[in-house]
Amino acid sequence: MAKIVMKFGGTSMAGTERIRNVASRVKKEVDAGNQVAVVVSAMAGETDRLVGFCREAAPLHDPKEYDVVVAAGEQITSGLLAITLQAMGVPARSWLGWQLPIHTSDAHSSARIESIETDALNAAMASGEVAVIPGFQGMADTGRVTTLGRGGSDTSAVAVAAAVKADRCDIYTDVDGVYTTDPRIVPKAQKLDKVTYEEMLELASVGAKVLQTRSVSLAMKENVRVQVLTSFEDKPGTLIVSDDEIGENDVERQVITGIAHDKNEAKITLIKVPDRPGAVASIFAPLADASINVDMIIQNIAHDAGSTDVTFTVPGAELARALDALEKAQGAIGYEKLVHDTKVAKISIVGVGMRSHAGVASTMFQALGSRGINIQAISTSEIKVSVLIDEDETELAVRVLHTAYGLDAAD
Amino acid sequence: MAKIVMKFGGTSMAGTERIRNVASRVKKEVDAGNQVAVVVSAMAGETDRLVGFCREAAPLHDPKEYDVVVAAGEQITSGLLAITLQAMGVPARSWLGWQLPIHTSDAHSSARIESIETDALNAAMASGEVAVIPGFQGMADTGRVTTLGRGGSDTSAVAVAAAVKADRCDIYTDVDGVYTTDPRIVPKAQKLDKVTYEEMLELASVGAKVLQTRSVSLAMKENVRVQVLTSFEDKPGTLIVSDDEIGENDVERQVITGIAHDKNEAKITLIKVPDRPGAVASIFAPLADASINVDMIIQNIAHDAGSTDVTFTVPGAELARALDALEKAQGAIGYEKLVHDTKVAKISIVGVGMRSHAGVASTMFQALGSRGINIQAISTSEIKVSVLIDEDETELAVRVLHTAYGLDAAD
Repeated sequence: MAKIVMKFGGTSMAGTERIRNVASRVKKEVDAGNQVAVVVSAMAGETDRLVGFCREAAPLHDPKEYDVVVAAGEQITSGLLAITLQAMGVPARSWLGWQLPIHTSDAHSSARIESIETDALNAAMASGEVAVIPGFQGMADTGRVTTLGRGGSDTSAVAVAAAVKADRCDIYTDVDGVYTTDPRIVPKAQKLDKVTYEEMLELASVGAKVLQTRSVSLAMKENVRVQVLTSFEDKPGTLIVSDDEIGENDVERQVITGIAHDKNEAKITLIKVPDRPGAVASIFAPLADASINVDMIIQNIAHDAGSTDVTFTVPGAELARALDALEKAQGAIGYEKLVHDTKVAKISIVGVGMRSHAGVASTMFQALGSRGINIQAISTSEIKVSVLIDEDETELAVRVLHTAYGLDAAD
Repeated sequence: MAKIVMKFGGTSMAGTERIRNVASRVKKEVDAGNQVAVVVSAMAGETDRLVGFCREAAPLHDPKEYDVVVAAGEQITSGLLAITLQAMGVPARSWLGWQLPIHTSDAHSSARIESIETDALNAAMASGEVAVIPGFQGMADTGRVTTLGRGGSDTSAVAVAAAVKADRCDIYTDVDGVYTTDPRIVPKAQKLDKVTYEEMLELASVGAKVLQTRSVSLAMKENVRVQVLTSFEDKPGTLIVSDDEIGENDVERQVITGIAHDKNEAKITLIKVPDRPGAVASIFAPLADASINVDMIIQNIAHDAGSTDVTFTVPGAELARALDALEKAQGAIGYEKLVHDTKVAKISIVGVGMRSHAGVASTMFQALGSRGINIQAISTSEIKVSVLIDEDETELAVRVLHTAYGLDAAD
């Protein structure tokens, strides 16, 4: 007998017919003798509908009231799943965020879970009753409803799993696992059986939209075994676990686990920045003040005695604000000219194996160079190498690298 | 400065544009220096949508989970109205049923309000903040969400008004007040400035669908001054108050306040019931057991030495169950034949003035008789006379009586 938390996303909960399918999966775990808690999202489209109402009511709205409105979506699906389970003969009840309660910070609309009271939850689960918990919501110490920000239901599920010390947290989504790369680009991409938290974090943060980054960080911190799988087919997904469990030095293991791409970056170059101490700080301070995330940074060698070019990337959505901040700071920074480019893509190779293998980055640069793909910037972490290239070459680069690292499935 | 509770129905809350209209009305009361609490319904159609989901999930569903699902509709509109008020510069916050809390019985899906905690509510109102309260919902002692049954928001509003000792409870609806009769039938029907609780109760229970009967009973019990008015126009509605306030003996007052009609009755006649003690009891016991409400009852004079006919009405929706119960009891009752008729209508004249005036019923019978309208059954209360007639003659009867009692507006 195991203790399992199951989480179902909006696509799985979209309408009573699909909720019945979800209930069947839950019943299967119950029939196998497991104790089950289920965390649910709102029906697909419902949160957008509710957010739309709030925006129509006032473009700048009180996040406390926004939370009251949008939390209703998951409240609805939690009640409906409990009803559906009961109709199948499975004892079940809903536990709203304020009923457990799930204590969060009072940062409304982007609250953080602080603790979850588990006495009632554990008692219910031990009695064989399925606990259905709306994701995305909690309660602040003020007694008011909070939400965790979009995609927060993954985080709710991992937090519940940590709180009840679940053996596994199964996150059902509309993809059947984590792949070596996007299968729409590389048909030979392979589903991974296992991936480490760190790899998943790097993959999640560079554009593999399977899980929310926050939920992976939490799973890593709390050591929750997470499985990503689909609710539409009956097959195992991808397990997200710690390094130890995978065996970093396993000879069978590929050096590179996955290849991600992200077209939502924008490149900014400041031309002829004075080459003196403090110059770089004067560039990034105004961006930090505007809460803009700077990613890849390259400082070219000096043009001549007195100046250099500085290139970096920011999220595409923040480009306008970044340009505004930099133009206002032109006097302080002293650059001559500002150019930007949104037709860029970031390609990343990710793998824990990188730590113990040399020449991994070199293979990347050679493979891209052999196809004439120009690298505009490079950044690295312990288990990741990212390069910035022309957006038009995204698919070509991903395919070339997938083959170069031996990730293609056998025919 | 007055303390006012305002209640807005689903039509008034249907979409952000209409909610803005509601907010303007609330702002007007606030600007006039009043302390305001607002009770809101779900958007028109939303409760039906949520009830539909529950039915699809399981025809027979746990009312505890049904309550979780349907309470979401009012939660959404309460947050949206708070946002809209804030955008107009009016301080406001939502107070969900469990947050105040509104304590109810645990009769899920048809709970009764037991008490409302008012400390936080009074403090908020006194500070100039509008309290926005979702109607229709509360919390049982078990800590679970309850709902009051369809139309319960009127009752929520009256209960809140009683709890905070409001000077007035304004119920905004899609009609602009209570009329002497249905204006679609009698264009000369007049809007009443005032009506007593008892009259309103009789009018509500015989088919004038302005207010839920429960809310009127509660207003009478708690002596809450209720006003019914429209949110779409700017004019006074109808005040519902106690007898004292109207002045029963006011010579200007009409004897009859209003004329109601109800086509949702069905007539049942049992032919040749043995004329012995206990016979009538044997008819109505099985109906009571099946929770069927019997309304008008007539026992004809005996046909011959041994038997009599018994006629009565039941709500049309309960006819099938009533027939079933009576057929099963044929042996015990001993009637010869059972006939029924759904083509009937109940016409009622209502007025507190009836108590001090003789000949009111006689005027009714004469007026109907003069137009050849046959009366199939009669029932009376202290302030009401109802007759059962052929459904086809409904409109004619209402018009004839409206004129006979001098209720037609002057041209």
